[in-house]
Amino acid sequence: MSKITIGFQILPYVAEDRLYEVVDKVISYIASKGIRYEVGATETTMEGEFDELMDIVKKSLEICTEQGASRVISLVKIDYKKTGVTIEEKVGKYRK
Amino acid sequence: MSKITIGFQILPYVAEDRLYEVVDKVISYIASKGIRYEVGATETTMEGEFDELMDIVKKSLEICTEQGASRVISLVKIDYKKTGVTIEEKVGKYRK
Amino acid sequence: MSKITIGFQILPYVAEDRLYEVVDKVISYIASKGIRYEVGATETTMEGEFDELMDIVKKSLEICTEQGASRVISLVKIDYKKTGVTIEEKVGKYRK
Amino acid sequence: MSKITIGFQILPYVAEDRLYEVVDKVISYIASKGIRYEVGATETTMEGEFDELMDIVKKSLEICTEQGASRVISLVKIDYKKTGVTIEEKVGKYRK
Repeated sequence: MSKITIGFQILPYVAEDRLYEVVDKVISYIASKGIRYEVGATETTMEGEFDELMDIVKKSLEICTEQGASRVISLVKIDYKKTGVTIEEKVGKYRK
Repeated sequence: MSKITIGFQILPYVAEDRLYEVVDKVISYIASKGIRYEVGATETTMEGEFDELMDIVKKSLEICTEQGASRVISLVKIDYKKTGVTIEEKVGKYRK
Repeated sequence: MSKITIGFQILPYVAEDRLYEVVDKVISYIASKGIRYEVGATETTMEGEFDELMDIVKKSLEICTEQGASRVISLVKIDYKKTGVTIEEKVGKYRK
Repeated sequence: MSKITIGFQILPYVAEDRLYEVVDKVISYIASKGIRYEVGATETTMEGEFDELMDIVKKSLEICTEQGASRVISLVKIDYKKTGVTIEEKVGKYRK
């Protein structure tokens, strides 16, 4: 399978005043993975192999429960083409 | 990791008059997997292990491109608790 | 605009043990509106006019804050065709 | 109701090689509305009043059918707090 892009939103059930703190831990973890990513207001976009990205999603869920979340809701939006999809082709022209 | 539930929506880019036909192939595939699932109007809910469900998602994307989809957009809504989440606890009372 | 269908998920930030209670209040409210709807495991599907459905979404957000939610995250999946979209055409065959 | 933020993804069913062209028309329209917005890889984030944003969503669906889309699928992620939610509070620190 070629590269895909995903939009990833994560909602840990912690006290609301700890929400950004826990989400920041997830973003730090994503930043450590060496893939292309972009932090947006309601999701983080990532580009990579399907299995690699789903491993990141899984570990992110676990980071939230390690941080005390009683429940984690997450939304993963997948964009897949046989020939691959990149973040650049999607937002490049809006950033110049 | 305990059982999770996912809501899975898939949007293959085929001619619109072939849309339900291709989505039906994906649902047939899901039905063949021996997991608990429910077909809803805009998504199919599934209950299972994270890795097992993500394999189903991946294979579903590939079924769409095999059916001629030039692109596949998909939405995966994950509900995760350390102690597990079931479809029954969420909809049971509304079905009685 | 013709009838649309929406898949509506709502996530009030309340203590996790009050989550189903608050979501139930939202579903009771939806049930009182006299539109076609279906409760699924991760969303409620509704069929109606765009403006009518968005009023229901807005009021649902307010019900959650009235119930003590410090924040409400919601996901609305819209399916729109000029000629209208119904829940029946999407799930009818899977229910027979 | 105070300001909310929404993440807005739109998927017009047109031939896949016209997809970016039609989405660009929607983004031009959003850009003309004088609200704060950000174009991301899989969605556009907007900040504003609930009714104002839902009018933009509705008009965006209609732009797609005017451009020949046989069907339009859209995803609207709402973030709502009684005291208001801004794009700045969510992404500000990641942009400095």
